[in-house]
Amino acid sequence: MSQDRQTVERVIERLHEVYGDRVQSGAAICEQHAHTTSWVPPQPPDAVVFPHSAEEISHIVKTCAAEGVPVVPFGAGTSLEGQVNAARGGISIDLGQMNAVVSINAEDMDCVVQPGVTRKQLNTELRDQGLFFPIDPGADASLGGMASTRASGTNAVRYGTMRDNILSLEAVMPNGEIIRTGARARKSSAGYDLARLLIGAEGTLGIITELTLRLHGIPEAVASATCAFPTVGAACDAVIATILMGVPVARIELLDADLVRAVNAYSKLSLAETPMLFLEFHGSEQGVAEQTATFAEIAADCGGTDFQEATSPEARSALWQARHDAYWAAIALRPGAVGFSTDVCVPISRLAEAVTAAQEKAGSLGLVAPIVGHVGDGNFHTLPLIDMNDEDERARAREYVSWLNELAISLDGTCTGEHGIGQGKMPYLRKELGHAVDVMAAIKVAIDPGNIMNPGKIFDI
Amino acid sequence: MSQDRQTVERVIERLHEVYGDRVQSGAAICEQHAHTTSWVPPQPPDAVVFPHSAEEISHIVKTCAAEGVPVVPFGAGTSLEGQVNAARGGISIDLGQMNAVVSINAEDMDCVVQPGVTRKQLNTELRDQGLFFPIDPGADASLGGMASTRASGTNAVRYGTMRDNILSLEAVMPNGEIIRTGARARKSSAGYDLARLLIGAEGTLGIITELTLRLHGIPEAVASATCAFPTVGAACDAVIATILMGVPVARIELLDADLVRAVNAYSKLSLAETPMLFLEFHGSEQGVAEQTATFAEIAADCGGTDFQEATSPEARSALWQARHDAYWAAIALRPGAVGFSTDVCVPISRLAEAVTAAQEKAGSLGLVAPIVGHVGDGNFHTLPLIDMNDEDERARAREYVSWLNELAISLDGTCTGEHGIGQGKMPYLRKELGHAVDVMAAIKVAIDPGNIMNPGKIFDI
Repeated sequence: MSQDRQTVERVIERLHEVYGDRVQSGAAICEQHAHTTSWVPPQPPDAVVFPHSAEEISHIVKTCAAEGVPVVPFGAGTSLEGQVNAARGGISIDLGQMNAVVSINAEDMDCVVQPGVTRKQLNTELRDQGLFFPIDPGADASLGGMASTRASGTNAVRYGTMRDNILSLEAVMPNGEIIRTGARARKSSAGYDLARLLIGAEGTLGIITELTLRLHGIPEAVASATCAFPTVGAACDAVIATILMGVPVARIELLDADLVRAVNAYSKLSLAETPMLFLEFHGSEQGVAEQTATFAEIAADCGGTDFQEATSPEARSALWQARHDAYWAAIALRPGAVGFSTDVCVPISRLAEAVTAAQEKAGSLGLVAPIVGHVGDGNFHTLPLIDMNDEDERARAREYVSWLNELAISLDGTCTGEHGIGQGKMPYLRKELGHAVDVMAAIKVAIDPGNIMNPGKIFDI
Repeated sequence: MSQDRQTVERVIERLHEVYGDRVQSGAAICEQHAHTTSWVPPQPPDAVVFPHSAEEISHIVKTCAAEGVPVVPFGAGTSLEGQVNAARGGISIDLGQMNAVVSINAEDMDCVVQPGVTRKQLNTELRDQGLFFPIDPGADASLGGMASTRASGTNAVRYGTMRDNILSLEAVMPNGEIIRTGARARKSSAGYDLARLLIGAEGTLGIITELTLRLHGIPEAVASATCAFPTVGAACDAVIATILMGVPVARIELLDADLVRAVNAYSKLSLAETPMLFLEFHGSEQGVAEQTATFAEIAADCGGTDFQEATSPEARSALWQARHDAYWAAIALRPGAVGFSTDVCVPISRLAEAVTAAQEKAGSLGLVAPIVGHVGDGNFHTLPLIDMNDEDERARAREYVSWLNELAISLDGTCTGEHGIGQGKMPYLRKELGHAVDVMAAIKVAIDPGNIMNPGKIFDI
């Protein structure tokens, strides 16, 4: 469905008449809307438009649909699998100017936000009310984007993912219709769950224009801790026991020895350079003390050593800043290299096996690939650091990523726990889900018969 | 799409050849598969088939699809909105013989079950492992049916609904294809969330043939309590404060004064006949003690009196048995009457207003309609008790139900928190969701172009 240049120019001209300099087609801005850290090269859109309302998006979508020109929604541009690439050209719809918190309903513990609001912005606005939005993918992503990739991150083990923390959505569909999937009830059995269908659809079914989010109370007490383990297997045993014991751990993150080394160097820490768990506990003062003590006991039983608590806000903040900087720390292990994050997720009983196999495979291929994991969910990221000028190394990295995705699938897991399919993981989706992909494609064709919504993503049609 | 008799007979004959006496078409068994407590009269299928595997269901569906004969999945028959009625005739697929627990993965806290397994059966099988499945709609429903109506119940305030506790599904689609929506990873961003699409679809998109469920650890300690309040508003204030304080209450149920009176009479209790909260706390010994104390303090601040704990298993069990028998207790208030459960759900800040308005409306219409609510979620059921021989009373009850559903919608809520739309609530879905219903219909047509899967439910096409 390649667009002839004239058609695209005509659409841009029409948008320009209505939106003036909120439509931009300079090379720099178009390239900025196509950055990607996947294997696929950047594919800039033909123009970028900055709408201010669902009605404007509806008009933009109708204008593009009438000419068969693709639209690609853009939040903060932090996705990792090429989700914002304009695979078939067209118009990038940048939602960054739709960044208002529409309402906060403290008694109901919910809020309504526009899609361009970022998670940090929201949490700043919520703080005074004693509330927070728990989903934390690391980057300061937009909430519309986080919904679209079904993001999660470090807190998901306790608070769930974007799937669990959205009450309802407003969206512009490919025909320009504005729909609302529900209201503010905390649960509903009213028909098909269109909110959950749009969450994770990566903008291929509609453009999210408003989100009603579930909030949580800022816990009375928070404590963080680190604990070293002799092996990845021992750390995973501690994770399993912690969850089986019902400790409502808020974060439980694994760093392998390579990554601890990287974090020590980058964040000036002096952690033991061995597999390490970073933890956080939320609750009442008494509850947090009890959780911490229970975990310390479990960890000791599993061979954990050097258990250290960080209760002061400064110490906690330093610890989690180091964790969030793990990506940059890893990159700094090999200056000039590019890091490609993988994202497999397996049942927790298979986690130690998967992490160990991933370490061995990287070693056997001569790759440096430190590992960090949201291990309470069985989700871990390896970060092969690749010299992009080395053709042979690129090929080995590709072999590694492909092997890892297939390993996860063979262990009853998935190739993507939280980053989405985008363009980068398209080859694995059918291996993972077989004929279910045909059902997805049937839904896509029914809702977007012209294939104008972020075409060329998730699966080919 | 009325089927001519000959076509249906031919299909039944074909099924009979393969499945022998697992195909039944006697009047008694057909009527038993159409019982309903909605306003709509029972609509029996033409025959009932009892399959043993997904492959058999695939064959049955293909056989019916080839002739355009509808199929209607049947679990335990406990749905409340006519979901199991054969609105356009056809074959009821009774999943009761597919009742095996396929596997329990204790370390992963998940299990795989066939759709005919009931929640009580599952919890009996799980007990030895220290695990349980928390969703409790009261009735001993089948897990396939609970998924199909997106059921929840008393524990949802803490543990979520069926939406939150299913990792993946296997289903037979209308073309007979068997799909799997995922594996056993605790989270996934791999394409459209087909599991969530099938959950709550009431068998209109596919027949669930296997469920992978998320399990929870049986808490170390459990305590129950009751507390009386001067008004519904005071009870609701206590609920809001409890949740805002972050007390992880496992159950928090409101009974209005009428229902307490009914429960006292039916279950031989002597509760104060005033609005009452029934509560349950789960956690460690210390955590439960802390939760109970925090709630007692909040309740006292809100005017609660007569706070009573029930910590012995016997006392707790008597209390929750009384709560679960509330439906029968209410019916017994007016012998010979039929009770029609409503199911609205509103933001918790609007709950007191909604419950009070519902009481007044019932009074003004001369109806007896006791109320019980899963108030932590803002969901409550009123149970108008109707003399079906009194035409005028039936009309007033219809007016009441219609008024109540519209009230909930006007308060940013839904006409159904957990029972589903079925046939009974079809008139309200479009009022609630507008054009979103067109998107649902487009999905239905794409996946089931012959409209053979439980036709005549949720919306008309």
